[in-house]
Amino acid sequence: MGKSETVKVRVPATTANCGPGFDALGIACNIYNELELTLFTNEVLEIAVSGEGKQYLPTDDSNLIWHVIKDLLQKTNSSYKGAHIKMHNNIPLSHGLGSSAAAIVAGILAFNLAVGEPFSKEEMLKIATDVEGHPDNVAPAIFGGMTISLQENDAVKTFSFIPQLPLKMIVAVPEFFLATKKARQVLPEKISVKDAAFNIAHAASLVAAMCTGSSDVLRYAFADKLHQPYRAALIPGMYDVFAAAEQAGALGAALSGAGPSLIAFTIDNENAIGEAMVKAFAAHSIDSHYLILDIDAQGAMRI
Amino acid sequence: MGKSETVKVRVPATTANCGPGFDALGIACNIYNELELTLFTNEVLEIAVSGEGKQYLPTDDSNLIWHVIKDLLQKTNSSYKGAHIKMHNNIPLSHGLGSSAAAIVAGILAFNLAVGEPFSKEEMLKIATDVEGHPDNVAPAIFGGMTISLQENDAVKTFSFIPQLPLKMIVAVPEFFLATKKARQVLPEKISVKDAAFNIAHAASLVAAMCTGSSDVLRYAFADKLHQPYRAALIPGMYDVFAAAEQAGALGAALSGAGPSLIAFTIDNENAIGEAMVKAFAAHSIDSHYLILDIDAQGAMRI
Repeated sequence: MGKSETVKVRVPATTANCGPGFDALGIACNIYNELELTLFTNEVLEIAVSGEGKQYLPTDDSNLIWHVIKDLLQKTNSSYKGAHIKMHNNIPLSHGLGSSAAAIVAGILAFNLAVGEPFSKEEMLKIATDVEGHPDNVAPAIFGGMTISLQENDAVKTFSFIPQLPLKMIVAVPEFFLATKKARQVLPEKISVKDAAFNIAHAASLVAAMCTGSSDVLRYAFADKLHQPYRAALIPGMYDVFAAAEQAGALGAALSGAGPSLIAFTIDNENAIGEAMVKAFAAHSIDSHYLILDIDAQGAMRI
Repeated sequence: MGKSETVKVRVPATTANCGPGFDALGIACNIYNELELTLFTNEVLEIAVSGEGKQYLPTDDSNLIWHVIKDLLQKTNSSYKGAHIKMHNNIPLSHGLGSSAAAIVAGILAFNLAVGEPFSKEEMLKIATDVEGHPDNVAPAIFGGMTISLQENDAVKTFSFIPQLPLKMIVAVPEFFLATKKARQVLPEKISVKDAAFNIAHAASLVAAMCTGSSDVLRYAFADKLHQPYRAALIPGMYDVFAAAEQAGALGAALSGAGPSLIAFTIDNENAIGEAMVKAFAAHSIDSHYLILDIDAQGAMRI
């Protein structure tokens, strides 16, 4: 029985949208899922999961990471047919921090390393986007920093950069799940040109502030009229949590991805902001805890 | 009869929207309108116009610059009641290069200097936006460089920066007028969330490329689905002129403001691009000429 080198990778959590940047902006955060992979020439499959969400993640043939790897083995006509997979997750599952994007990217990167790196980062981005359906989380998971992603015809384009500000992200993680699919269903098909222009101006301001280090601009740049107003009904107290974060010193706050986690951006006062957010959720009878995160500058990497 | 010091100012042309940045992005360009102003304590009015559009611009009480100045005199309870105004215009009139914004800003800045500078730049931005109706041209006219502007409640916010690229702008100026009002009327009230997200991603990419000097990104960043598709019918050959500019080496092209001028962005091949644009317009029986412009970094200033 032949087997590959055992490779181990880590992939960062990611927060998408960042307020006005619907389906475009993403930031990599410094909590990580880890994956250890060995490929085998015979059809073995062993999957072990520890950490966040282990009670929900299947360890059989239906596992998402194995699905990604099996697909790549078939597409590349690999002589490998089986795998030993060990995952350790630190990213909360289904909470808007890119846990599925991290799993997909981890599977692709580990596969790529185990079989001799046939794919560039750009090719891994395309593969990951095809699996995930959109690039907003997989792009920062791969490249790190802040990313602006778009799909045009069949191509995926991403620009990544390291924000020129010592930003901390305070993520309030409520004790309930929200499926991205459900959060998509509440969106309208059309919005007014006025609301679209509002988001264009705010997303452009946000990116300019991040590129140039102008924290003053961030005090108004996180506003959104495209998705958050419609998703507010799914997240009790959302705007109150935003307001509490800002009153405690945050530059701004937003839904993390499609939620339900809410994310505040700040230079300081991290704990006061986190506590204010948890308290504001509690006023709506929602239990939550908070994480203080930095921007991850490396993206997915071998460890 | 008392009179003020005679002051002379120049204000740059501006191009708004820049493709995806509808109602948000603007760039100041290095052609200028000049204004010389003396205020008088009695009700004299002398207006002289030379240069672009002199046959269309009134020299009586209905002149736009005098309208702006008269309004400021009344609002500030000034002892001045009259003016001598000399304008020399280099910015083509009603062609999407911000000639009305330049006139408004010139009037406000000249007034401000003549009466001892009661207004900050931010206050002049607010006054100019109230007259013009939107900040996209007056903001770069005042601050220079590239600007991202937005109106929120009654406030106007602008972030300005100098693009980190030696960009040239090639403006094809067709021999017909297009009123901004008409160009606004063809826009739909609503657009799809998908098209809005398209513009958000492209505008954010454009700004990031300008802030960081990444010219590769500009090859895809100028695309727009919010206003140009609807305005194309008003500008024969618009997309052909864009394509001709890109084939001749431009990074991208867009409507300048609401048109009818079309603007290509490039690092080199300026004349080849200009000639290709004029030729593409000619294929649609539109006479035009082209201008090669640099980014103006100063904005409106005393000369």
